Amino acid sequence: MGRVAELEPVLAAMPFDETGLLPAIAQQYDTGEVLMLAWMNREALRETLASAQACYYSRSRKQLWRKGERSGQTQSVKAVHLDCDGDAILLLVDQRGPACHTGRRSCFYLEVVDDAVRIAIPRIMDPDELYNRA
Amino acid sequence: MGRVAELEPVLAAMPFDETGLLPAIAQQYDTGEVLMLAWMNREALRETLASAQACYYSRSRKQLWRKGERSGQTQSVKAVHLDCDGDAILLLVDQRGPACHTGRRSCFYLEVVDDAVRIAIPRIMDPDELYNRA
Repeated sequence: MGRVAELEPVLAAMPFDETGLLPAIAQQYDTGEVLMLAWMNREALRETLASAQACYYSRSRKQLWRKGERSGQTQSVKAVHLDCDGDAILLLVDQRGPACHTGRRSCFYLEVVDDAVRIAIPRIMDPDELYNRA
Repeated sequence: MGRVAELEPVLAAMPFDETGLLPAIAQQYDTGEVLMLAWMNREALRETLASAQACYYSRSRKQLWRKGERSGQTQSVKAVHLDCDGDAILLLVDQRGPACHTGRRSCFYLEVVDDAVRIAIPRIMDPDELYNRA
């Protein structure tokens, strides 16, 4: 993972937009499943690089979001990729349990089929169980 | 692919933000490679669903961007997924040649390793060749 102090010039050069955020994709490193898309500011990316645990920025809560801090469903970060414009981030992660708050492995469980949207990925955990742990 | 007229209520309900755009991930349907992240407005998603060819919205050119219209490197769309909040799109595509304008299969060819960013994915085509076709 990144030695963050030395990466400051990279972080400084990345075009975090007027809101200060860039999209970050989390992909399961071994199966290739796309798990979720979230947002990062510089601080979230810096923390992710330093800790090797995915840290995003929650647009609704307006604060850093250490993935799994409430649910326990953490993402251990295996690699961090940037795209050709430096304005999108791809994390290769090892997701513990479901990535989605609905208890599904991936947030992208809705599939457009013909004239409808259907659920394409089953629950692997009851969402109540996710957020009501002892 | 979607029968678009019947999907209008879904398109209308999706939270395209104040800029009218949502992030869209393109993933190679059979290998799982994440190829690129681009942006869609409702019209781009509507066209993608109707044509089964990826159509994005170019933020720099401020117009619809039919992927491959200049380079020939089209994306045939196998499936369209939405995430749990309906605010991110995942396309499973069959990418012809390189997805990236640099001639690489994926735009996410930069990897953060220790204190540096290195190129992790080789070119499969000369970028000059991509845009200077007969």
